Amino acid sequence: MNKSEIIKLLQNVQTGKTDVETALKRLKHMPFEDMSYAHIDHHRHLRHGMPEVIYCEGKTLEQVVGIMKRMLRVGSDVLATRANETIYKAVRKLDRRAVYHKASRAIVIKHDENKPTKGVVLVLTAGTSDIPIAEEASVTAGMLGSTVQTVFDVGVAGIHRILSKRDILDAARVIVVVAGMDGALPSVVGGLVDKPVIAVPTSVGYGAGFQGLAPLLTMLNSCASGIAVMNIDNGFGAGVLAHKINVLGER
Amino acid sequence: MNKSEIIKLLQNVQTGKTDVETALKRLKHMPFEDMSYAHIDHHRHLRHGMPEVIYCEGKTLEQVVGIMKRMLRVGSDVLATRANETIYKAVRKLDRRAVYHKASRAIVIKHDENKPTKGVVLVLTAGTSDIPIAEEASVTAGMLGSTVQTVFDVGVAGIHRILSKRDILDAARVIVVVAGMDGALPSVVGGLVDKPVIAVPTSVGYGAGFQGLAPLLTMLNSCASGIAVMNIDNGFGAGVLAHKINVLGER
Amino acid sequence: MNKSEIIKLLQNVQTGKTDVETALKRLKHMPFEDMSYAHIDHHRHLRHGMPEVIYCEGKTLEQVVGIMKRMLRVGSDVLATRANETIYKAVRKLDRRAVYHKASRAIVIKHDENKPTKGVVLVLTAGTSDIPIAEEASVTAGMLGSTVQTVFDVGVAGIHRILSKRDILDAARVIVVVAGMDGALPSVVGGLVDKPVIAVPTSVGYGAGFQGLAPLLTMLNSCASGIAVMNIDNGFGAGVLAHKINVLGER
Amino acid sequence: MNKSEIIKLLQNVQTGKTDVETALKRLKHMPFEDMSYAHIDHHRHLRHGMPEVIYCEGKTLEQVVGIMKRMLRVGSDVLATRANETIYKAVRKLDRRAVYHKASRAIVIKHDENKPTKGVVLVLTAGTSDIPIAEEASVTAGMLGSTVQTVFDVGVAGIHRILSKRDILDAARVIVVVAGMDGALPSVVGGLVDKPVIAVPTSVGYGAGFQGLAPLLTMLNSCASGIAVMNIDNGFGAGVLAHKINVLGER
Amino acid sequence: MNKSEIIKLLQNVQTGKTDVETALKRLKHMPFEDMSYAHIDHHRHLRHGMPEVIYCEGKTLEQVVGIMKRMLRVGSDVLATRANETIYKAVRKLDRRAVYHKASRAIVIKHDENKPTKGVVLVLTAGTSDIPIAEEASVTAGMLGSTVQTVFDVGVAGIHRILSKRDILDAARVIVVVAGMDGALPSVVGGLVDKPVIAVPTSVGYGAGFQGLAPLLTMLNSCASGIAVMNIDNGFGAGVLAHKINVLGER
Amino acid sequence: MNKSEIIKLLQNVQTGKTDVETALKRLKHMPFEDMSYAHIDHHRHLRHGMPEVIYCEGKTLEQVVGIMKRMLRVGSDVLATRANETIYKAVRKLDRRAVYHKASRAIVIKHDENKPTKGVVLVLTAGTSDIPIAEEASVTAGMLGSTVQTVFDVGVAGIHRILSKRDILDAARVIVVVAGMDGALPSVVGGLVDKPVIAVPTSVGYGAGFQGLAPLLTMLNSCASGIAVMNIDNGFGAGVLAHKINVLGER
Amino acid sequence: MNKSEIIKLLQNVQTGKTDVETALKRLKHMPFEDMSYAHIDHHRHLRHGMPEVIYCEGKTLEQVVGIMKRMLRVGSDVLATRANETIYKAVRKLDRRAVYHKASRAIVIKHDENKPTKGVVLVLTAGTSDIPIAEEASVTAGMLGSTVQTVFDVGVAGIHRILSKRDILDAARVIVVVAGMDGALPSVVGGLVDKPVIAVPTSVGYGAGFQGLAPLLTMLNSCASGIAVMNIDNGFGAGVLAHKINVLGER
Amino acid sequence: MNKSEIIKLLQNVQTGKTDVETALKRLKHMPFEDMSYAHIDHHRHLRHGMPEVIYCEGKTLEQVVGIMKRMLRVGSDVLATRANETIYKAVRKLDRRAVYHKASRAIVIKHDENKPTKGVVLVLTAGTSDIPIAEEASVTAGMLGSTVQTVFDVGVAGIHRILSKRDILDAARVIVVVAGMDGALPSVVGGLVDKPVIAVPTSVGYGAGFQGLAPLLTMLNSCASGIAVMNIDNGFGAGVLAHKINVLGER
Repeated sequence: MNKSEIIKLLQNVQTGKTDVETALKRLKHMPFEDMSYAHIDHHRHLRHGMPEVIYCEGKTLEQVVGIMKRMLRVGSDVLATRANETIYKAVRKLDRRAVYHKASRAIVIKHDENKPTKGVVLVLTAGTSDIPIAEEASVTAGMLGSTVQTVFDVGVAGIHRILSKRDILDAARVIVVVAGMDGALPSVVGGLVDKPVIAVPTSVGYGAGFQGLAPLLTMLNSCASGIAVMNIDNGFGAGVLAHKINVLGER
Repeated sequence: MNKSEIIKLLQNVQTGKTDVETALKRLKHMPFEDMSYAHIDHHRHLRHGMPEVIYCEGKTLEQVVGIMKRMLRVGSDVLATRANETIYKAVRKLDRRAVYHKASRAIVIKHDENKPTKGVVLVLTAGTSDIPIAEEASVTAGMLGSTVQTVFDVGVAGIHRILSKRDILDAARVIVVVAGMDGALPSVVGGLVDKPVIAVPTSVGYGAGFQGLAPLLTMLNSCASGIAVMNIDNGFGAGVLAHKINVLGER
Repeated sequence: MNKSEIIKLLQNVQTGKTDVETALKRLKHMPFEDMSYAHIDHHRHLRHGMPEVIYCEGKTLEQVVGIMKRMLRVGSDVLATRANETIYKAVRKLDRRAVYHKASRAIVIKHDENKPTKGVVLVLTAGTSDIPIAEEASVTAGMLGSTVQTVFDVGVAGIHRILSKRDILDAARVIVVVAGMDGALPSVVGGLVDKPVIAVPTSVGYGAGFQGLAPLLTMLNSCASGIAVMNIDNGFGAGVLAHKINVLGER
Repeated sequence: MNKSEIIKLLQNVQTGKTDVETALKRLKHMPFEDMSYAHIDHHRHLRHGMPEVIYCEGKTLEQVVGIMKRMLRVGSDVLATRANETIYKAVRKLDRRAVYHKASRAIVIKHDENKPTKGVVLVLTAGTSDIPIAEEASVTAGMLGSTVQTVFDVGVAGIHRILSKRDILDAARVIVVVAGMDGALPSVVGGLVDKPVIAVPTSVGYGAGFQGLAPLLTMLNSCASGIAVMNIDNGFGAGVLAHKINVLGER
Repeated sequence: MNKSEIIKLLQNVQTGKTDVETALKRLKHMPFEDMSYAHIDHHRHLRHGMPEVIYCEGKTLEQVVGIMKRMLRVGSDVLATRANETIYKAVRKLDRRAVYHKASRAIVIKHDENKPTKGVVLVLTAGTSDIPIAEEASVTAGMLGSTVQTVFDVGVAGIHRILSKRDILDAARVIVVVAGMDGALPSVVGGLVDKPVIAVPTSVGYGAGFQGLAPLLTMLNSCASGIAVMNIDNGFGAGVLAHKINVLGER
Repeated sequence: MNKSEIIKLLQNVQTGKTDVETALKRLKHMPFEDMSYAHIDHHRHLRHGMPEVIYCEGKTLEQVVGIMKRMLRVGSDVLATRANETIYKAVRKLDRRAVYHKASRAIVIKHDENKPTKGVVLVLTAGTSDIPIAEEASVTAGMLGSTVQTVFDVGVAGIHRILSKRDILDAARVIVVVAGMDGALPSVVGGLVDKPVIAVPTSVGYGAGFQGLAPLLTMLNSCASGIAVMNIDNGFGAGVLAHKINVLGER
Repeated sequence: MNKSEIIKLLQNVQTGKTDVETALKRLKHMPFEDMSYAHIDHHRHLRHGMPEVIYCEGKTLEQVVGIMKRMLRVGSDVLATRANETIYKAVRKLDRRAVYHKASRAIVIKHDENKPTKGVVLVLTAGTSDIPIAEEASVTAGMLGSTVQTVFDVGVAGIHRILSKRDILDAARVIVVVAGMDGALPSVVGGLVDKPVIAVPTSVGYGAGFQGLAPLLTMLNSCASGIAVMNIDNGFGAGVLAHKINVLGER
Repeated sequence: MNKSEIIKLLQNVQTGKTDVETALKRLKHMPFEDMSYAHIDHHRHLRHGMPEVIYCEGKTLEQVVGIMKRMLRVGSDVLATRANETIYKAVRKLDRRAVYHKASRAIVIKHDENKPTKGVVLVLTAGTSDIPIAEEASVTAGMLGSTVQTVFDVGVAGIHRILSKRDILDAARVIVVVAGMDGALPSVVGGLVDKPVIAVPTSVGYGAGFQGLAPLLTMLNSCASGIAVMNIDNGFGAGVLAHKINVLGER
C-alpha cells in the first residue's frame, strides 16, 4: 500500500465509502515505507541521510547492475563498494559519470556536487598497506558530502610522525584512524584530541594478527576513552559514521 | 622540564648565558605537557575535554583514594567506575558530595552543575539485565554535561517496542544501544535513524554467548552502516563517545 | 497510540475534524501493538503462542518479582527460568500455586491445567549430568501444554541403550536430545527417526569441552540431516521449539 | 544377513536343521537393516522419510556418479548438493530428467511429481548475497514435497521490509530465515510469529564475521525463544528440517 | 527382551507355537544387551574389558551413591573419579574396602586383587603440579590390573632428567606422559622409544596456556609420530587406554 | 664423537695417554647417537621401530629427493607423505620400486616384503570423503608391517551400518576410526569394543566444522573411555600408532 | 651416576679393573648432571646462570617447603613466585632472611648481596593495575643481580608521559614494558629506543581483552621491530630474560 | 620544522628578533625528528640502530620501488622482506648490488661491508620446512652486522641431534630457535644454555597447528624461563632482536 493508496483510503473514510472498522484493519500492518518500488531509495535517504549502497561481493554482475539501474532511474547517487574492474566496466556503460577509485575498489556516481562541509573528516593510516581501507573511508565520507583530508603512514613505531601532525589533528572535527598489525595508533590519537575518533582495524599483518583480529582487539581495549570501533577492513562504515558525526557540527 | 624552565632557557639564550647548540639539545626531548604534577589533570581536560577517570578494578583502595585526593585538590570533577561500596565509603569521607550510582557501580563528584546540553543522548537497552551497563553510559555522559534520556527493555524479539519509540529516537542527537545475547538491537535502530549510533555489547547471556563475544560480533557485522562499537560491557566508553559527539551539535 | 485512539482518529477523519494530511502523518509511525501496558502480555500470547518468560539471571529480586506481579495481575501463566530458591520463596508469597522445579531451577505458575497434547515431546539425555537441562526443556514444554516423556542416560558409548528405546522413539512426535561431552547422541537419534530432532548441547564435561563448545560444534556438524541446534544449556528454548512443532500435529 | 537369510534361519529352526543355541548366536549381532546392498536406500526412506542425499564436496566425480547410478537403479529420487557443472554434465548423461539449480549448486532427479503440501515453507533472506543458501533450502524442501515460498532481501537494517510481509509470515507453517553479517533477522521474525523458525547463518560478510561465526552466534543467542539453528551455509539441513516440521501439519 | 526370552521365542518357533513371520518381527529391534537391569554392568565388562566408571562431577551425592550401590550388588569393581571427600565418606559407609586416592580424587573398591601384568605402564610428568592427573591415570590403570610405575618432574627444560631415565623408559610397555605449560615432554619421549606413548595435557599454567589448550595443541602437533592424545586433565582416559594396550602384550 | 672415538678415548685412558680429568671433560657432552651421518637412520629404526618418514609439504623437490637418496643408500625403506605427482615422478627415477598411493598422496619404497602381522589393524571411515586420510593410515601401517583391513562409510547417522560390522570389529586388534563433520563414530565404536581405538578427525565438512576442529573436539570429549586422538587429517600418525600397538600383540 | 662415580669408573679403566667395553656401556646413558641430589641446583646455576625457581601455584604447601629446604641446604638463593601469605609464613620459619614482596607475591631469600650491575633494567607499566606484574619482573631481575629502575603508569593514551621519560629510556640497557588493555606501549617504546625491549601483556582489562589475549596479540604484532614477547602476566620470565640480556653488557 | 629552522629560531631569540613568548609557542609541538623528508631514515638509524625496512606485502610495486629509491638516495642500507622475484627484478635496475635471498624472499643492498661482530647469533630450526623463516632471521641479523651461524633440522623428536650441538650452543651469544608443529625445541634449548633465547613459531604443520598458533602457544608457555617469543613466521623480528642483544656484548 503506497502513499496515494493511503490517501485514497482516508478519503474513502472521509466520504463514508469505507467504514472505520475496515480502514482500521487495512491500516494495521501498513508497510508504510514500502509504498512502491520507486520510492524506496528516496525514503531511505530521508531516514538514513544517505543513499542505498551496493556491497558487491557475493552479488552477481547482473544483480549489481540491476540494482544500480533502479537507483539511477530514481535519481539517486550511487556508491558501490568492493567492486572489481569488470563491474566498473559494466557500470560505465550505464552512466559515464561513474568514477572508479581503484585503491579502495569503490564506484561513485554523483548527480550534483554538494557543497563540502566546513568540518573536516581526517583519515589517518598507521602504514602504507592500510591505505586501501583508508581510501574506502575517504571516498565514502566525501561522496556523502564531507570535506576529507588524509595523512598516511604515521604509525606509533615512529611516534614523532603523528606528533608532528598536531595542527592537522586539531583542525579536524572527527578523525578516522586505520591501522593493521598492532592497531595501536587510535589509542595514541585518542589521547591527543578531544574529538570523536573512529578506529578501523585492517587485515594487514600476518601470523598472530589473525587477519585483523589483533588490531580489532587492540582497538576495542583502547586505553583512550570512547574510541568508536568498526569491523575489520570496514572503511565504508567508518566513512558513514564520520560523515554522520561531521554534519552534526555543520548545523 | 616545565613551562617556567623553558622560559628560563629561552631567556638564557636571549641573554647569551646559553648558546644555541646547548639549547637545541635540551629542547630536543621537551616533555612539554609534563610541566608540573599539579597541571596534569587540567591539561588533560583541555586536551580531552574530560577529567581523568579512575577505573577501580585492579587498583587497591589506597591507590584509588590517593588518586582521587590529588584530583580533588586541583579542583577536578571525579568519575570512578567499577567501584564497590567499600570504595564509596572511603570516598565519602574525602568529599561529602560523592554520589554512588549503585546499578552502574560509579562514583561521581561534581563541583558545579554544568548547564545541560540541548542535544539529547538517548540510551537504550535490549533487556532488563543490560541496565547496569546502560546506567554506566548514562552516568558518564551526564557527568560530562550531556542531557541523557533512557529507555529500557526494547529488544528486537518484540519489535513493536522499539517501533513505538520513534519519536524519542527522532528527538535524540546520538543514540547508545546496549544489548547482550544476540545483540541485534543496534542493527534495527541503526536502520531507523540518520544519527550516530553507538553499540555496547554486554556479557548478558550464557553458553555460546561467550561472555559477550556473540553480541560484540553481531554489532561489528551490523548490516546497518556506520555503527560505532565499544568493548563488551564498556558503558563508560559509550558515555564518553556519546558526549563528544553530542557537544559537536551544541556549538 | 492504542486501538481506541486509532478509532477516534478515523472517526475524526470521518467527521471532518481531522483532515487527511494530518491523519496520514499521525498514522505513519503507528506503534500498533503497543496499545496499552496491560495488553502487552495478552498480545504476545496471541503473536507467539506462549506467555512472556522471565530469565532470572542478571535481574534483581525486585525486578523478577515486579515483572511477575504484573503478569499475574493480567491472568497470565508464568514461567521463570534460572531461578534460585530465594526467588522461589519470594514468588510463593505472591502466589501459592507456584511450583519450583529444583533440578531445572524453574518456577511455574499455571492458572488452569490445559488438556495435554496427543503428540508426545520426548526428551532424551546422553548422561546423568545432562538431566537439569533436560528438565528445563521438559518443564517448559509441559507448561506450554505438551505431553512430555523423558528417558535419561542413553548416550552413544553404550549404543544398545538408545537402540532398545526404538518404540519410544517411534511413538514421539518430536524429540529433544540433550548431551554434553562429545554431543554425539543427536546424530544417532537423527539417523533412527523421520521426525524433527532438537539438539541441546550442555556444558557438561571438562578440558577441551570448553564449557559446551565441543557438543555444540558436534551438533551443528551432525551427519544426520536437519537437526535443530539450540544454545548451550538452553533447555528452555528446546522446550519452546518442541512445543511449537508438537502443536502443528494436533491441529 | 538379509531378510531372506533370516527367514531361512528361522525356517531352519522350525524344521530342526538349526538348533536354538546356534540360531541365538547368529542372531545376536543381526545387522537387520543391512539386508542387501540394493535395499539400503529404500530402507532409509522408510526410516528417515527422505532419500539418501549426495554431498558432492570431497568426493570424486566417479564416486558421485557411482552412488547416483545405484540410487537410480532402485528407483530412488536423487538430490546432490554442492555439485558443480562438471558433475551436472555427467549426471545428465545418466538421466535426462536431472535439473541443475545453479544458484544453489543442487542437482535434482525426481521420478514423479508429488502432490505439494498445503502447508507452506517460507524461506527468507536478509540480503541478496544470502540467496544461494536460501535456494538450497528451497530446492531441498521442494524436492521432498513441501510447497515453498521465498522472500529475499528483507534484513533488519530496513525493518519496514519484513514488517510489510506480515501476511506472508502469517500464512506460512514454518519459516526458514537465512542471514549473514549480523544474523539478526531470525530474532525479529521469531518475535513476530508463533510458528517454528529455522535460522541458517551464512558465510556472507567479512572481517569479524569470521566466515559465518558471527551470525551463527547471534542466532544461537537469539532473544526470541526456540529458534532452531543450523550449521553455517547449511541450506540443505534447513530444507530437510522445514519439510519434516511441515508434514506434521499435513496429517 | 533378554536372553531367556529370546531362547523362549526360538523354542516357540521350534515347536511351531510362533510362526516365522511373527518371530521375525519381534527380533527386528532386539535390544540384546539390555536384557535386564542387573546384567548391564556384567555385559559391559565383557564388551569393554572394564567395569562402569562413575564420573562424579555434575552428579548429586544421591546419584553417585545410588549407582555405586547397584554396581556393588552385582559384584562389580568400582572406580569413581573426580570425587570429593564428602562422596568418599558416603561411599565408605557402603563398603569399607573403599580407598580414596586424595591427589587424584579417585575412589576405588576392588573385590579381589588381580595378578598384576608383567608389562609396565609408565606414567611420567613434566612438573610437580601435573602429579594429580598422573595419579588419576596411575590409579585407573592399576585398578584395571596393570602394573604401574611413576616418575615425576622430568620436564624438557632440564632435558638431562628424562635422559637419565632411559632404562625405565626401555623397561615399560606403554608410556603415559602428563604435561601442562608447553606440553613438550611427549615429543621428546616419543622420539626416544619405539612403544606407544599416550600424552595427557593438563590445565597447569596460566595466561596463554588457556587452561590446557596450549599443551593440548602441542601434543596434537607433536613432531614425534603416532602420539595418542587425550582430553585436557583426562588422566582417567589415559589409564584406560594404557591398560588396553598393555594387556595386548600379556596375551 | 662417534663410537670408535669413544673406544679410542677409553683405550687412551687405559694406556695412560689421557688422564682421567681430561677424559671426564670430553665425555661430558657425549653426543652418543650422532656417531656418523650414515648411521642416523639405522639408529632411528632401532630406537623408534620405524624408518625416517618424509613429510613433503614445505619442502622443495630438491630437498625431498636429496633426503630420499640418502635413505635409499643406507638400505632404508621409504615413506613419503603428502607427496604430489611431481615428486612421485622424480622418485620413480631414483627407484623403480616406488609405489604411489594416489588417494592418500603417499609414496612407498620397500626393499623386502615383511611377513604381515597376525593381528589386524582395522581402519574405518564415517563417510566417503574421509577415505584419503584413512588410506594414509592404511598405507602407513601396512608399510610398517601390519595387516590392514578397511571399511568405509559407516557413520553414525545410519547406525545399522557399523552395527552390522561387529564381526569385523571383534576380529581386529586395534581400530582406527576416521571421521569428519560431527566426528561421532569413534564414540560408538569405542563403546562396542574392548580394544584400543584411535580416532582421526578430518577436515571434511564446512561452516562450523572449522576445518576439522569440530570432530577433533568431539573425539577429545568422547564419552567412550580411552580413545586415542590424533591431529586433524593425521592418517599417518594413526597408522604409526596402530602399528606400534598391533605389534605388541605379536610378541 | 655422579661425578665421583665417573672418576672412579675412569680410574678403574686406568687400572684395568674395568675393561673398555664395560665402561662404554655404562657411560652410554650417562645422566651427567644428575650426579647426586645435592648437586642439581649448583649445576643448574652454572648451566642457566640462575638458581631453580619455585612456581607455587598447583603445588601443596608441603611440596613448596620441601623443595625450598633442599635448596637452602645446598646454599642456593631462593625465588618463589605466586606465593601467598600462608606460604610466606611457613618459609619465614625456615629462614628469617626471607623477604615477601606482597604486590608481586614473590618470596626471596638471598645469602649475599651481589654487586649490582652497571647496566640498568628499566621496567615500565602502562597503568597502575599492571604494577604487580611489573614488580614480579623487577624482583626477579633484581634478585638475579641486575640493577632495576621502575616507572609506572606511562600508557600511550597520554603519550607525553612516556615522551617525558626519554632520558630514563636512554639510560637503560634493556627495557621491560608491562601493559594490559590495548598493550600499545611496547610499540611506542620500541620505536623510541635502539635497545632490546621485552613486552609483558597483563590480564588487566575486561570484555574483549579476553584475560590478556588482546595485549598479547598487540605485542606479537607490534609495528616496532624485534619486540620480545612473554606469556600473559609472566613478569618472572621478563625479569629472567632482562637479566640475561643485561649481563651481556657487563662483560 | 627542521633542525636548521630550529637553529634559526634560537638565533632569532638570541638576536632579539623573536621574543621568548613567540618562540615558546612555536617550539611547543616541535616535530623534531620530522625535520625534512630526506633526513628521516638517517635519524631512524640513530634512534633504532637500524635502517628502515620495507615489508613488501600489501604494497604495490610502485610503492616499494619509490621508498627504496629515497632510501638509496640518502645512502641508507636497504632490507626488503617478503619480496617476490618481480620486486627483485625492479630493484636490480635501481641498484646492481641488490642481493636476493630466495629462500627467505629478502632483498639486501649494502653500501659497505661492516666488520662482523665477535659474538655469534646462532639460528636453529626444528625441521627442514622451517628453513625459510630461519633464513629471514639470518639475513636480517647478518645485514645489521652480526656474525650468524645456522644449524637446521635438530627438532626434539630426535633429541640427540640438538644434544650433539652443545659446543655450538655454548659458543653463541644469543640463540634464535625457529620451530613449527609442536614448537618444543626452544624449551629444550632454553634449558641447556644460560644465554638469551629467541623463539620463532612457524606456520609449518597442519590441522590443529592452526597456521602456527600451536607452536606460538607452546613457546609462550615454555617451561624454560625467559624465552623471548616472536610473531608466527617473524624471522625478521628475531633477526633484529638477536642483533640488538648481540651488540650489547660487543661493547
